[in-house]
Amino acid sequence: MDRSKFKHTTQIKVRNYEVDWQGIVHNTVYLLYFEVGRVEYLKHIGVKVDINTIQGESKVVLVRNEINYKSPARFDELLTIYTRISFIKNTSFAFEAFLEEDLTKRLIAENMAIHVWLDSSTGIATTVDEKFKALVRKFEGDTVAILNNLKYS
Amino acid sequence: MDRSKFKHTTQIKVRNYEVDWQGIVHNTVYLLYFEVGRVEYLKHIGVKVDINTIQGESKVVLVRNEINYKSPARFDELLTIYTRISFIKNTSFAFEAFLEEDLTKRLIAENMAIHVWLDSSTGIATTVDEKFKALVRKFEGDTVAILNNLKYS
Amino acid sequence: MDRSKFKHTTQIKVRNYEVDWQGIVHNTVYLLYFEVGRVEYLKHIGVKVDINTIQGESKVVLVRNEINYKSPARFDELLTIYTRISFIKNTSFAFEAFLEEDLTKRLIAENMAIHVWLDSSTGIATTVDEKFKALVRKFEGDTVAILNNLKYS
Amino acid sequence: MDRSKFKHTTQIKVRNYEVDWQGIVHNTVYLLYFEVGRVEYLKHIGVKVDINTIQGESKVVLVRNEINYKSPARFDELLTIYTRISFIKNTSFAFEAFLEEDLTKRLIAENMAIHVWLDSSTGIATTVDEKFKALVRKFEGDTVAILNNLKYS
Repeated sequence: MDRSKFKHTTQIKVRNYEVDWQGIVHNTVYLLYFEVGRVEYLKHIGVKVDINTIQGESKVVLVRNEINYKSPARFDELLTIYTRISFIKNTSFAFEAFLEEDLTKRLIAENMAIHVWLDSSTGIATTVDEKFKALVRKFEGDTVAILNNLKYS
Repeated sequence: MDRSKFKHTTQIKVRNYEVDWQGIVHNTVYLLYFEVGRVEYLKHIGVKVDINTIQGESKVVLVRNEINYKSPARFDELLTIYTRISFIKNTSFAFEAFLEEDLTKRLIAENMAIHVWLDSSTGIATTVDEKFKALVRKFEGDTVAILNNLKYS
Repeated sequence: MDRSKFKHTTQIKVRNYEVDWQGIVHNTVYLLYFEVGRVEYLKHIGVKVDINTIQGESKVVLVRNEINYKSPARFDELLTIYTRISFIKNTSFAFEAFLEEDLTKRLIAENMAIHVWLDSSTGIATTVDEKFKALVRKFEGDTVAILNNLKYS
Repeated sequence: MDRSKFKHTTQIKVRNYEVDWQGIVHNTVYLLYFEVGRVEYLKHIGVKVDINTIQGESKVVLVRNEINYKSPARFDELLTIYTRISFIKNTSFAFEAFLEEDLTKRLIAENMAIHVWLDSSTGIATTVDEKFKALVRKFEGDTVAILNNLKYS
């Protein structure tokens, strides 16, 4: 994961109830953090985030999540969530993200989240919206791979 | 994922508070379900699950999670969690799992969760405990790949 | 809380991720358990539970919760949730509930949850639905106090 | 609840996964927010918050929670948590709190959380620590009722 390509960051503070019986943040909580990062990213680049668009039942669905756990986060630590869209294929796109603890700059976890664009009426994968692509391209510039000619994604 | 290889199942019912604003189970909740499956699996094969062993900070740590989301689960659905250990390498092992809705037999999600065995005092990866291997082998038989001679895992 | 008046029970098992850094179930999780009890209770007596009725935004809203914490529950303990409707006033009604650990029969927590019936179009408190009252009366018999003549609830 | 008596505030933003199938913050999440308020309050007045003191298993336990739900909070709303300690009796003390949405200044929910001081070795209620009382008195001034001569709390 090339850290220099990330332009968008959000900060989050570990809350006491997110820490499990081992004194560390529970492994599922990092996924919630990454989701916060994606929501903030989309708002930042100008994509409306509501029930009917991103993460809503009709348009875009999360189809795959990959997480590498590197170092546990602890109560009250301040984390920076780095988020980017790394590629857009015909009908899918990928968020990449990582979490860094602010004080020690240690890497907490990495994530890749693959989303697919769906036709609301049929539920079948369809081409990624052009306006969405344009907003991502405008923000990411050349760091996002837009692969328009792929037959299969 | 070869479903015929799974011998261990646990059932779980979707609770109302696990359903998000889209009327479907939130994507992070499936990870909690898979964790329930692993805990029940380990208890079933005779591995003691507490703070100091599996999932404890000193012995075994989760280093990677992969989830494929296939079909959303909904409130009050009964799900079967299928769980197995698919391979054991020198210092790591993998849980594979999938969720199936009972009534329609539809596939909800698949998971692979990679764990590493750590030396409690040094925090460095060490060889997977032989007693653990034996318990897994006894339960899984030939379906678990035990790769003893790998130099790197 | 008179335990002899409770006719409805549901069982729930403490999951590992519900346990906090103290090794005990986090204080908010008991509220989720009590909610599971209420949902099962309503289904049992024949009240349809969906987005638009109980707990939905248009008809019935939770306005007050009281919880007494008696003894912490721990991982893997089996709990019985006892749930009843203790009174129905003009526009409101109350669920009472308690949690008991099965093996030692120790009391874990008690709950009272007050709900108000709302007119969906105006959002103003209105009289509790007669069909709902009848279903509760049929199940609870004389143990539910139905206070029809109260001017203020 | 006299709002003029509250000196301590913390802000929290509603995250997307805290919103339930009704499009509003789930009723148990407000308790998590109130807990965030208490933790920040204690840190602010100089009380060390860790496993062995406040909220730890040995010293201070939450014995009762009361919540009044006034108006649901929604995704992305910014909330201010107002927190104070309203009374300290011989062996117990009370946090009062309320949540206000920033833009419309509407009241979201109110909370009272009663805690008891325990002797770690015996598990029996004991007198509230004098250093704790002093820190609270220093911060709250005359608004906290310290009731030293009560035989029973």
